[in-house]
Amino acid sequence: MATEVAAPSQSWQDLVARKQSECKQKIPSEWTLSAEQLAVPSRLLEHDLPRRSGLLSDLELDLTENYTAAQLLAKLASGEASSLAVTTAFCKRAAIAQQVTSCLTETFFPEALERAKSLDAYLQHEGKPIGPLHGLPISIKDSFCVKGQQSTIGYVEFLKHEPAMTNSALVQLLLELGAVLYVKTNIPQTMMTGDSDNNIFGRTLNPHNTSLTAGGSTGGEGALVAFRGSILGVGTDIAGSIRIPALCCGVYGFKPTTFRVPFSGQVSGALEGSPIPAPSAGPLGHSISDLQLFMNAVIGDGHAWRYDQAAAAVPWNTSQLETANLKNNGSLTIGVLTEDKQFPLHPPVKRALQNAVKKLACAGHKIVPIKNDTEDDLSVAYASRLGFQYFVYGPHIDHIAPSGEPPVESVAKLASPMFTGPWPVDMELETFEKIAKLQEARNRISDAWRQTWVEQKLDVILAPGAQSTAVGYDTYGWPPYTLLWNVLDYPACMIPFGKASKELDPIEMKTGDSVQPDYIPDEVDGAPCAIQVVTPRFQDEACLRAADIIDRAIRN
Amino acid sequence: MATEVAAPSQSWQDLVARKQSECKQKIPSEWTLSAEQLAVPSRLLEHDLPRRSGLLSDLELDLTENYTAAQLLAKLASGEASSLAVTTAFCKRAAIAQQVTSCLTETFFPEALERAKSLDAYLQHEGKPIGPLHGLPISIKDSFCVKGQQSTIGYVEFLKHEPAMTNSALVQLLLELGAVLYVKTNIPQTMMTGDSDNNIFGRTLNPHNTSLTAGGSTGGEGALVAFRGSILGVGTDIAGSIRIPALCCGVYGFKPTTFRVPFSGQVSGALEGSPIPAPSAGPLGHSISDLQLFMNAVIGDGHAWRYDQAAAAVPWNTSQLETANLKNNGSLTIGVLTEDKQFPLHPPVKRALQNAVKKLACAGHKIVPIKNDTEDDLSVAYASRLGFQYFVYGPHIDHIAPSGEPPVESVAKLASPMFTGPWPVDMELETFEKIAKLQEARNRISDAWRQTWVEQKLDVILAPGAQSTAVGYDTYGWPPYTLLWNVLDYPACMIPFGKASKELDPIEMKTGDSVQPDYIPDEVDGAPCAIQVVTPRFQDEACLRAADIIDRAIRN
Repeated sequence: MATEVAAPSQSWQDLVARKQSECKQKIPSEWTLSAEQLAVPSRLLEHDLPRRSGLLSDLELDLTENYTAAQLLAKLASGEASSLAVTTAFCKRAAIAQQVTSCLTETFFPEALERAKSLDAYLQHEGKPIGPLHGLPISIKDSFCVKGQQSTIGYVEFLKHEPAMTNSALVQLLLELGAVLYVKTNIPQTMMTGDSDNNIFGRTLNPHNTSLTAGGSTGGEGALVAFRGSILGVGTDIAGSIRIPALCCGVYGFKPTTFRVPFSGQVSGALEGSPIPAPSAGPLGHSISDLQLFMNAVIGDGHAWRYDQAAAAVPWNTSQLETANLKNNGSLTIGVLTEDKQFPLHPPVKRALQNAVKKLACAGHKIVPIKNDTEDDLSVAYASRLGFQYFVYGPHIDHIAPSGEPPVESVAKLASPMFTGPWPVDMELETFEKIAKLQEARNRISDAWRQTWVEQKLDVILAPGAQSTAVGYDTYGWPPYTLLWNVLDYPACMIPFGKASKELDPIEMKTGDSVQPDYIPDEVDGAPCAIQVVTPRFQDEACLRAADIIDRAIRN
Repeated sequence: MATEVAAPSQSWQDLVARKQSECKQKIPSEWTLSAEQLAVPSRLLEHDLPRRSGLLSDLELDLTENYTAAQLLAKLASGEASSLAVTTAFCKRAAIAQQVTSCLTETFFPEALERAKSLDAYLQHEGKPIGPLHGLPISIKDSFCVKGQQSTIGYVEFLKHEPAMTNSALVQLLLELGAVLYVKTNIPQTMMTGDSDNNIFGRTLNPHNTSLTAGGSTGGEGALVAFRGSILGVGTDIAGSIRIPALCCGVYGFKPTTFRVPFSGQVSGALEGSPIPAPSAGPLGHSISDLQLFMNAVIGDGHAWRYDQAAAAVPWNTSQLETANLKNNGSLTIGVLTEDKQFPLHPPVKRALQNAVKKLACAGHKIVPIKNDTEDDLSVAYASRLGFQYFVYGPHIDHIAPSGEPPVESVAKLASPMFTGPWPVDMELETFEKIAKLQEARNRISDAWRQTWVEQKLDVILAPGAQSTAVGYDTYGWPPYTLLWNVLDYPACMIPFGKASKELDPIEMKTGDSVQPDYIPDEVDGAPCAIQVVTPRFQDEACLRAADIIDRAIRN
């Protein structure tokens, strides 16, 4: 059946079965796990499957576990490690991750290994790396197009599409910088939920605890990076889709200002062009310095526009944007976004944030609380409703129904922030008037944040990463604390910090709104917590600089 | 009558008469011209009215005629010239300009002189200038709000509005940089024509030849700067509104990438928010170096976002963006946009462009013709129609009818490029689908230009400034050669170069389309010509650098 050509009359189940079989066959038999090996405990990372599996050599374990991307690139550039060795190691580890977390969509290991070999030959022949990402394996979200691979973004209907004929702008750029692409990663059906679950590739599991969501929509990356099946992954984010998986899986994630990283040429299910907060592409990784490395390589001297007409020709500039405090590693003025009462923080999240604030104050930074729990222009709940209204005011194209597949649970639930209040703009208005009022509301909010920033003389904002940690399947709810920064188009960096603990926070907390997850100490015990670091639009360099300073301070 | 309070029952003529009288009274009697002095010839600049009038001292003539803004700022900072002296000189000269060209809307000479005095006191007391624009008078388009002044943008209906309670973002920034504001400048009714003519402030005349248009919509600036009643003016541009007056009046004008110069807080007659090419604010002046000075002061280290939430926090960076050729003042690869057959260039315009190309080739630059006269993605005519469709696909708010005033001639005519072909997007589509298709068309064009740029390894594009020079009243027509760069959001600099000459180009040319102006040698003899220099989005620094190199080369 797996080799049959898809006929129009095939059921959606047939299409899926065929795709699943093809995907399975693409994992080399020598990298597949036995039934015994597949019987893993829920705390997958602690179980250390890559080592137990015996599939990775000591060198491969070392290459995938003990270095930053920057360190690997140094080894690759000097020839100390071949791209073939590094790529093989990450391919193997990704293949293992896939078998226990369903984090991948397309794999193209043979093509990756071929490319690695040719890069090794280039280095040997030319005596220098081909570019700043020479030989480094990079994983990428399924929505990006890689020549010869499908981009189904979790819609069964899209299984009928041909493989991509051209690369997405960012894919082309990464290849020209010397990267090796080897896998695309899993997403939710619709790409708009906190559970990377769909009827083709299944549900991505959280490697910290497989009974929890890995987050979405870049959930495959979150799981893969946490498993160290990738040293650097690429996601996209319109409401938290990079940062939620980073938070859920305990890795670093960065949502840049829109149009700084090339975004064009991806597969999307939406009708494009109408005014909504725009999505941006950005990295997930194991350290701030690797996020900086990615941004510096991709943006560099401002060449992104050469690959994507929509990308801004703005260089990665670490010398001019930062405030004097950031420049001198001096004492920062840190605005702290406190809890919105309508989205009360789960106790472990609150504890992590308070803990971070305490450490930052101890390190000599100035803490300025930002009041935002009333219905004023800084309100998180109001921004959530405005963001939601932007997402739903236009027509919706249904890519689920045509194939006959059902919506997955998290899609069927359709989390919404509308329990917190009314539409910011009258939904009955004529379209153009509605657009004008939505933009007016957004400008008003943006102006209030600008004013706060200037008046309080802020260097950076520290905010909760989310209301909760990773939670049980299909209960993540609405993402107010990430979406806010998309509405403002502010760059935001997720920093893993602390863990949920049923010992430290033993008491359940009910949100009582029937949308957002309750805090259940047993369920999330051990789940990663995170904090979020934010700066105004286009201050991406400052955001990562501040994130680095804060990351060091809270580890002390 | 002039002192009556406006009652709702007043006719539009009454409202206008009252405003005109108020404006007239604001010009000090000692600066008003006699009937004899007002009888000027049409070649106003040659007539040298400021000198003949006897109103300006030798020092004032010197200050307004013989220095760049940079040189004036040096004198101001050192105390060699007081801001009071410089401001007085430009106020007088602007008052004279107003009486013979109707280039102004609001004047606030007393406030300007008071501010100049206080800046002089600051310098004396502190021993240093207050900011990089210390004491420099700057003129600004009527759409900007200056506290205490009306912003009627040429609508009689808006005469009922109160004076502005707050400054526009850019006004606030300019004041904090040390500038002195003294006048706002005239625009067309609707701000969407090439004739700065309205029923309140009348028609701005072109000081090169008062029987020609001064251009629009920043026509008041064009005339005032050409008259040297301003050393540096500020306009806005959504289809050519900075560059058309610069071209018509023979001065330099720069349309930056959108969101680089603060734009927020202006009065607008449009319903905002729907996707159309966005306008940007930028300078008009007497040299490339003064345009650079303005951009550097306003953008600086990227602080524009502190004044305007919509402004990008991107520093003015002259070190990183430029290609190697631009950096080293080496040989440039210059793409030359040739004529679109549907918008044939008037002979003087063609001659100026060819002359510039010849000089640039002689100077060792590489010239690459850009073919654009077929209906492909680089077509000027297609971009014109797309731009026009963006302007008209949404609802139109009529601010003319409510007061009872009639449309002025250039508005009544409503120039359109639709004689060149069909709508790019089916006008019958549902709104969201239409928006999506419009954006798709724009992205396709942008991508074609990106590809051309990259494949041809261009450093810069040289293009016609317009189809014509300044022409007779209300005949300027549609502006294809400026609008193209708004559709792409490419920064573009207008460089005055050459003059129309009935001796050199004695033969009439009819466009035959009944929209665009014919070439009539007698009519435009002596009118300034211009060329346009363009780079991709956000490469404003490169655009002005290239403009400087080109400006020097063509003057040799």
